[in-house]
Amino acid sequence: MAESGGKQEYYIGVDLGGTKILAGVFSHNLKCAGRAKVSTKAQRGPEAVIERIARCVRDAVDECDLDLKKVKGVGVGAPGPVDPENGHVIVAPNLGWEDAPLKKELEKLLDTPVFVENDCNVCTLGVYECELQSKPKDVVGIFIGTGIGAGLILNGKPYSGFNRSAGEIGHMVVEVGGPKCSCGNRGCFEAVASRQAIFRKIQAAVKDGQKTILTDILGDDILDMRSGDLRKALRKGDKFLEKLIEEAAEYIGIGVANVINLLNPEVVVLGGGIIYALEDDMMAIIVETAKDYALSGTAKGIEIIASKLGDDAGIVGGAVLARRETK
Amino acid sequence: MAESGGKQEYYIGVDLGGTKILAGVFSHNLKCAGRAKVSTKAQRGPEAVIERIARCVRDAVDECDLDLKKVKGVGVGAPGPVDPENGHVIVAPNLGWEDAPLKKELEKLLDTPVFVENDCNVCTLGVYECELQSKPKDVVGIFIGTGIGAGLILNGKPYSGFNRSAGEIGHMVVEVGGPKCSCGNRGCFEAVASRQAIFRKIQAAVKDGQKTILTDILGDDILDMRSGDLRKALRKGDKFLEKLIEEAAEYIGIGVANVINLLNPEVVVLGGGIIYALEDDMMAIIVETAKDYALSGTAKGIEIIASKLGDDAGIVGGAVLARRETK
Repeated sequence: MAESGGKQEYYIGVDLGGTKILAGVFSHNLKCAGRAKVSTKAQRGPEAVIERIARCVRDAVDECDLDLKKVKGVGVGAPGPVDPENGHVIVAPNLGWEDAPLKKELEKLLDTPVFVENDCNVCTLGVYECELQSKPKDVVGIFIGTGIGAGLILNGKPYSGFNRSAGEIGHMVVEVGGPKCSCGNRGCFEAVASRQAIFRKIQAAVKDGQKTILTDILGDDILDMRSGDLRKALRKGDKFLEKLIEEAAEYIGIGVANVINLLNPEVVVLGGGIIYALEDDMMAIIVETAKDYALSGTAKGIEIIASKLGDDAGIVGGAVLARRETK
Repeated sequence: MAESGGKQEYYIGVDLGGTKILAGVFSHNLKCAGRAKVSTKAQRGPEAVIERIARCVRDAVDECDLDLKKVKGVGVGAPGPVDPENGHVIVAPNLGWEDAPLKKELEKLLDTPVFVENDCNVCTLGVYECELQSKPKDVVGIFIGTGIGAGLILNGKPYSGFNRSAGEIGHMVVEVGGPKCSCGNRGCFEAVASRQAIFRKIQAAVKDGQKTILTDILGDDILDMRSGDLRKALRKGDKFLEKLIEEAAEYIGIGVANVINLLNPEVVVLGGGIIYALEDDMMAIIVETAKDYALSGTAKGIEIIASKLGDDAGIVGGAVLARRETK
């Protein structure tokens, strides 16, 4: 700390997604000084994407009139299991990557230390240090978006297990024989409670003649639906949608209860696009259902909360990762 | 270690169950020197049961011509969440206990250090040190008996979470809307894969006129069924039972996959009466189903094995707990 003079230390967090890359520059106290966003262009292959990450980082640094030399480290959340020792992305289905040496290549391009972790772990780390002040011992972050993933902090440290793939909660079976999941199995948590699962149900119902305010908002082509559209239709009193979102919230509550029964963490924090857009409609039902399904006494005192970081969880978490690793 | 002279050190493991208490005396190398068993008589209340534990311990010590003074510590596995700091059993539904000061009272009666932990954690600890030589970093032990419970070793240490109730895997929902569970909810793992669930299915089928070799073995009153009877009927070629056990093994495999997806431990070890009696009939199906339901790549290299300790897991684990705590 001494050698770099307190306030001048900066960390960069990168959220590497299937469609977009976000980068944020943060001070030591996790104040955001600047940010940038570029599309991922995954189809161009790992080398090109890593160059785009580097460009996004440089854009964010430029945005806040900084020099990359002032940056102590870059933390990247990648959409798949990661070997944090060598910074390889073991596999990332959304990017078409296998064993990609992200850390090494990005360090070459940026001449700055780079640290890589799984995106859900990074988001949970961001929530843990930024929202929860690192106080709880054990935290599980559950992120409900297109898919569902989780990050685990156990005994104050990110936990990723034998193949670095802990937290694949989206593929926890909650309904044997239930709806088909993208993984090939049936009844996965992701197949009943993700944005994709919700959209699929709406599309099927509309095809069967169900009336919904969504078609008034979006026209007949509801394939372009976004989480925010659901919120708008709910505000306009769409009863069909209300029931459907209630059902999804119940499934999420059951998923949370499964986590509480198995891991009994002090805090379960929910994030991701669906929670961000529908917090007011879902959280009370999620909490009530989770407490109903947790074994008597096991949920006592456990907090089930929605993250306030929203879409920023990834870049904040990346900065936290870089701050941790360069200590 | 120096002060007590190596080979003369003994540890006692106690398995406190709803119907019986087992105690075993073990050398430092976990060789069993003697054992005893008494019925629990839970209806007489905590004080009487704790006296019976003390008697069982004295019986086991007497059995191997030892003096209680040679015993460095007693480790007890209790059927419920435990506060290991003060050795209180927080709650034990099978015993009707709430906040019972087991450690303190038993230490008074035995004048020897006593350590208390949840029974599934204790069994997993026994398997971990005795069968796995403490090598894996993360191990989950799943015990399938009348109910289903799990013990977690994470980063080489027992993990019990915020309310000390981690591992309540029996109440993880795997089939929303499924069969009713003793906890009041529906579709719990325990409600589809425990001994109780299997017996309930057999009884319902027999009531509906299903033929099974079990009725030849046990007569019309199949309420006294034990896990060993299932094995006998399977050996005699009972096709109905074969299918039913196959189905239960598939459910267990799904439960194991859920653990692998969420925690990605290096080893999942299965134990308890059902696994002990039906290992040959169930394990291949359990392993195959678990690998099918684990997300692609996540189960790679993960061992899914049956414990060889059988009914001794509790007393071995108790001795391991005492050995750890008196180091």
